[in-house]
Amino acid sequence: MAQKARFDAPLKLRSGTELPGFELAYEAYGELNAARSNAVLVCHALNASHHVAGTYAGREDEVGWWDNLVGPGKPLDTRRFFVVGVNNLGGCHGSTGPMSPNPATGKPWGGDFPVVTVEDWVESQARLADRLGIERFAAVMGGSLGAMQALQWTLSYPERIRHSLVIAATARLSAQNIAFNEVARQAITTDPDFNGGHYYDKGVVPVRGLRIARMIGHITYLSDEAMMGKFGRQLRRAALGFDFDIDFEVESYLRYQGDKFSSYFDANTYLRITKALDYFDPAADFDGDLSAAVARAKAAFLVVSFKSDWRFAPARSRELVKALLDARKIVSYLEIDAPGGHDAFLMDDARYFGALRAYFGNIEL
Amino acid sequence: MAQKARFDAPLKLRSGTELPGFELAYEAYGELNAARSNAVLVCHALNASHHVAGTYAGREDEVGWWDNLVGPGKPLDTRRFFVVGVNNLGGCHGSTGPMSPNPATGKPWGGDFPVVTVEDWVESQARLADRLGIERFAAVMGGSLGAMQALQWTLSYPERIRHSLVIAATARLSAQNIAFNEVARQAITTDPDFNGGHYYDKGVVPVRGLRIARMIGHITYLSDEAMMGKFGRQLRRAALGFDFDIDFEVESYLRYQGDKFSSYFDANTYLRITKALDYFDPAADFDGDLSAAVARAKAAFLVVSFKSDWRFAPARSRELVKALLDARKIVSYLEIDAPGGHDAFLMDDARYFGALRAYFGNIEL
Repeated sequence: MAQKARFDAPLKLRSGTELPGFELAYEAYGELNAARSNAVLVCHALNASHHVAGTYAGREDEVGWWDNLVGPGKPLDTRRFFVVGVNNLGGCHGSTGPMSPNPATGKPWGGDFPVVTVEDWVESQARLADRLGIERFAAVMGGSLGAMQALQWTLSYPERIRHSLVIAATARLSAQNIAFNEVARQAITTDPDFNGGHYYDKGVVPVRGLRIARMIGHITYLSDEAMMGKFGRQLRRAALGFDFDIDFEVESYLRYQGDKFSSYFDANTYLRITKALDYFDPAADFDGDLSAAVARAKAAFLVVSFKSDWRFAPARSRELVKALLDARKIVSYLEIDAPGGHDAFLMDDARYFGALRAYFGNIEL
Repeated sequence: MAQKARFDAPLKLRSGTELPGFELAYEAYGELNAARSNAVLVCHALNASHHVAGTYAGREDEVGWWDNLVGPGKPLDTRRFFVVGVNNLGGCHGSTGPMSPNPATGKPWGGDFPVVTVEDWVESQARLADRLGIERFAAVMGGSLGAMQALQWTLSYPERIRHSLVIAATARLSAQNIAFNEVARQAITTDPDFNGGHYYDKGVVPVRGLRIARMIGHITYLSDEAMMGKFGRQLRRAALGFDFDIDFEVESYLRYQGDKFSSYFDANTYLRITKALDYFDPAADFDGDLSAAVARAKAAFLVVSFKSDWRFAPARSRELVKALLDARKIVSYLEIDAPGGHDAFLMDDARYFGALRAYFGNIEL
């Protein structure tokens, strides 16, 4: 069901670099209605892709990353909405990215692929919307980094977004958030196999660095409480080993997650995604005044945060809600007492999913 | 002023391994009184040493790590108390550790140096106390990992400790705490220069891994708020660079800390210290009942925590205080609203230092 759209016109990036044409991998679910008024764009976070919902024939274990939320009869009901998922530019799941051939050399871009931003993603997605005949989205939705895109859409294209669902978000990263990203980047770029990002033709992959980056990430996605509930101090072996093999379950979990991720995710993409996170700061052009920054939005907003999320804590969502209210936008805000940490945005929770179902149900087509 | 004490009798470690003799580097400040009743042991945390206070002649920039607290006229007043600092066994500041020669081979222990625990440190420190003629300490004090030793002393040698000052502590690491340690260990052990811990004679050092480990550490030592206050989103260069050099001040800080640490600290020691942290859990032998575990202590306790400390949050100290009270111990508890995060235990704060001054002032000699 994955499709590709090719765009031949160059794309001027926020960095000033011009990307000479690009492809986007995307998937669509449901049908665009005659009025073209029922389209919903779902934006992904760090490691996900255009594969939002369902499975492919013969690959039933590859379930879409938000399949619990998106599908026939689900909170975002694909019998009513036409849902589009797209792999971000610079990604490693089919859209043009560091693994793609650089037209100037014929070899993979590697370390020469430009740094892309949330604003650039919105630009590229707008071209896809044009291609699909979507003048205006009923809604754009995302969690975490996806939520930044959902917010940016309302600022880049105020007329094209009716509703924006901004989940587990922040309007800008804190110093601590940037710090975690920087450690992940340093782990990757100092890996001897990184070769300045030009590792594809050397037959190596900076597995060590990517593994460390992912482990750090996982700690920030779960709360202290959630980790304690899930693993406690449970041992993996009969007794403490007094060596450096795995003692505790949580160590086993982290190593597993690190190994799995580093076997399929591209390090160059990872680096660029963390920079897109760090750079996102719509208030920066308004002397830090977020309310002034969001003034141009015309969408109605649903903002959702989770109490156990310490990566993008509820306080960050409240800052955004206050800025939107100060700018006289229509805003609903939901703060959910769920234990899952930042990852709670991916998990089924009756209050959370119930609210999303109700919100989508109230969108007139 | 640093001195060394050599112990020739083997030390049976908690792991079952027997260490054939060892040396401890230590420093002492003030004078042991005639009644030998004024000795205070100061235990260090991760990267510190026996050099607690003062400077060495000609090396005035190497100030002791708790010099703001310990010295003549300071809260722990060395005109009144005889203060002992000791580098932990397995350390890299002069005590026997992985860099020391293994008597069996004549070459550095390296990766063969045993895993040592908080209990083992107390055992080795007890031998030093014997050597110095200290039958009973007026007090033992430490922050973070040092606080674990201050607590363990009261359990290993109840008769030898009159007061225990347990600062910024936890009675056991959470799954998240262990997770951060494990990522640090993985960064070190997967560094190609690690060589299973036998890198000394290869002319290499696992600098990359140690650097990442230290960066992760620093994030957990500061609070999100403290980092935001210190660095904000302040740029290090005139504008965003759209590359992978340093954009933000916080990145510069982290890289500097990582570089500095990896230039002087031993990776094998770092690995062992994180294991000592992970393994510490005095309640484990009592079915998780911390109150039962501390029942044998005879010391009076001062427990101090800091509100912005998310590594060992005040809730952990409160658990310990409750367990001590349930076991009918004498406990004072101070929860300080200081912004410094975990590192607040090293910082001068009028309420904190005032309380320590008063507490030491009330200890009868």
